[in-house]
Amino acid sequence: MTLALVAMGGMAMAQQALFTRAAVKSPEINADGTVTFRLSAPKAVTVRLSGDFLEAPGNVEMKEDSVGIWSYTTPNKLEPELYSYNFIVNGMRYLDPSNIYMNRDVATWTNIFIIPGEKGSKGDLYSVNAVPHGNLSKVWYDSPTLKLTRRMTVYTPAGYEKGKNYPVLYLLHGAGGDENAWSELGRASQILDNLIATGKAKPMIVVMTNGNPNTAAAPGEWDFGMYQPSMGGGGVQLPQAAASMDASFMDVVNYIEKNYKVAKGKANRAICGLSMGGGHSFQISKRYPDTFDYVGLFSAAIGVGGGGNNNTPLLERMNNDAEFNQQMATMFGKKPKLYWIAIGKTDFLYESNKALRQYLDGKGYPYEYRETDGGHIWRNWRIYLSEFAQKIFK
Amino acid sequence: MTLALVAMGGMAMAQQALFTRAAVKSPEINADGTVTFRLSAPKAVTVRLSGDFLEAPGNVEMKEDSVGIWSYTTPNKLEPELYSYNFIVNGMRYLDPSNIYMNRDVATWTNIFIIPGEKGSKGDLYSVNAVPHGNLSKVWYDSPTLKLTRRMTVYTPAGYEKGKNYPVLYLLHGAGGDENAWSELGRASQILDNLIATGKAKPMIVVMTNGNPNTAAAPGEWDFGMYQPSMGGGGVQLPQAAASMDASFMDVVNYIEKNYKVAKGKANRAICGLSMGGGHSFQISKRYPDTFDYVGLFSAAIGVGGGGNNNTPLLERMNNDAEFNQQMATMFGKKPKLYWIAIGKTDFLYESNKALRQYLDGKGYPYEYRETDGGHIWRNWRIYLSEFAQKIFK
Repeated sequence: MTLALVAMGGMAMAQQALFTRAAVKSPEINADGTVTFRLSAPKAVTVRLSGDFLEAPGNVEMKEDSVGIWSYTTPNKLEPELYSYNFIVNGMRYLDPSNIYMNRDVATWTNIFIIPGEKGSKGDLYSVNAVPHGNLSKVWYDSPTLKLTRRMTVYTPAGYEKGKNYPVLYLLHGAGGDENAWSELGRASQILDNLIATGKAKPMIVVMTNGNPNTAAAPGEWDFGMYQPSMGGGGVQLPQAAASMDASFMDVVNYIEKNYKVAKGKANRAICGLSMGGGHSFQISKRYPDTFDYVGLFSAAIGVGGGGNNNTPLLERMNNDAEFNQQMATMFGKKPKLYWIAIGKTDFLYESNKALRQYLDGKGYPYEYRETDGGHIWRNWRIYLSEFAQKIFK
Repeated sequence: MTLALVAMGGMAMAQQALFTRAAVKSPEINADGTVTFRLSAPKAVTVRLSGDFLEAPGNVEMKEDSVGIWSYTTPNKLEPELYSYNFIVNGMRYLDPSNIYMNRDVATWTNIFIIPGEKGSKGDLYSVNAVPHGNLSKVWYDSPTLKLTRRMTVYTPAGYEKGKNYPVLYLLHGAGGDENAWSELGRASQILDNLIATGKAKPMIVVMTNGNPNTAAAPGEWDFGMYQPSMGGGGVQLPQAAASMDASFMDVVNYIEKNYKVAKGKANRAICGLSMGGGHSFQISKRYPDTFDYVGLFSAAIGVGGGGNNNTPLLERMNNDAEFNQQMATMFGKKPKLYWIAIGKTDFLYESNKALRQYLDGKGYPYEYRETDGGHIWRNWRIYLSEFAQKIFK
């Protein structure tokens, strides 16, 4: 294929645009564990680095060299973790042209990098390692309840073609997210691949639904056009949902159990989610008390009783809500194997989760509780998935 | 779930970063078919728009209003098509913060938008419409020839779960690409969904391989880390391949035929590709003359005979290469149903494809030829896929 290589030389000139990327390396993980960021910007007046590994306020000045390359090196080595950053050039948010790796959260793209670290560290769990990999599929299924054909992401573990009777984890995203959130921002494939390969988690199917019952799929992936998503509902006017996510959830379970090599029964089903998806997991688990033996609430948005923007404390509302008490009594009467609550110390939902714990304590319902540093952020949700996945189907 | 909504108000404040996107709409497709681009950049000195819909040199000045919003409206309506663009702020390439839709080509991200147009137009074919959708999967398979477990993208048409005996199109990318290229830059899922839904193409499985035999998967998706890809081979030093793509290709076919509901036999297999992948299709089709009844060369990089950076014209090399002549005679002796060559008038590979046509003419081997405007660009490759997919398995 020598000629093809010559041809590529020509292509290089023809497709010049592909080659005009900045000639700097960024980010560079140095031998001592510090990280250097670089941006070629000879005409810029100010360049700052914004990153989730920086001390408050979360951004620092970069320094320009004599040829217009701005750089910043972290003063200390960074711990194994997935980090996010972007540049700020003359006050404008700017993505790193030397780094193709980015995640989208709602309407914002941000560069990412991983400090891999030793085996079993967070950075290792989030990395693609030399282990067998599961397949990841975008799957369309019918939801009669929502009157939609909808899209979900399905992870099947390595060896699935030859195996049988896999348990299923239903993994739910938060507000502003979609069926892509857990596999992209959440590194779910990498976490599961690595935990399964090391025997720390059972081989399982992971089903990542779209938790917005008024949409069929992620933005741009259904027939609503290439709209700009938003979290507060501004921007486009999306359709009304035909039903709630909770009410429609068995459409998902039914599709999976019909079309995948699934071990049935409560002992082979787990459900967990973050924020809104933690709320969904909370509602769905008690609505269908025979369905899930493992329930994980990650920074869950817990809605209970009474409605209205009232000032009644959540614990009091829980205790006063007859239907809620009946559902919880029924569910815990069936002795789920694990009811797991996890939240960060500075999460804005900390108090409502505390009220839930007080309620469970008051009733004597068993649960496990995990508290981490930090707030309502993906860094915590990746930790919670990593831990929850090791506790289920065992 | 009223409380959850209240909680989200809190989340809105907590996750402030998610909300700081530019408040402008961009791009906006106006009622008259023109398109307006906007960027809020009060401190910028110059802002230009670069786009593949602009006259040479392909970029224009944007104008600033009194509050620092720069804008540009196309003078004429744009024809139905998928377009690419970015901003240039003070001389630096800048992605549109109001548009989450982007494609990566090698190491460069570029914003995209689609003018949908009437039914059957290119814009319509590339859009997600209200039709049944096929599933798209990232699938790991063993390649004993390459001594790698590798990743490919597999499209299964709508209804696959209930169907059987699907023909298979093997769809190959070009240099610098990977197994994600055709489904992202090439809109392969949308093209197939739309053609199948309107009866213009047969329901088929589409297998999008990774054509770089020295890598297991797209950058960041295998255990080589989050490296920055490049086209000329600069940057990272990738491993040596154990064999060529051509030599390993039956590993792909074998996996697909073992694991999918496939109609076997030559009449149910097609292969096509762009540039390097056109070269692969050219080589693979003659190397395995009993395998494919449909062959599509899209702007193909054709390598034949002799080797070396010599100045012998390609037609002469073809005529002088005994093995090549033998392979071509064998393949055409088995009467493939379609040998399809497509290229743009200004493609830098035009002359070598002309030499191939002259060779085929000289031998009396039947083929179809499609010539379009334009050069070595994705806009052409989407057209070629749209047309080729309608010609096969019929």
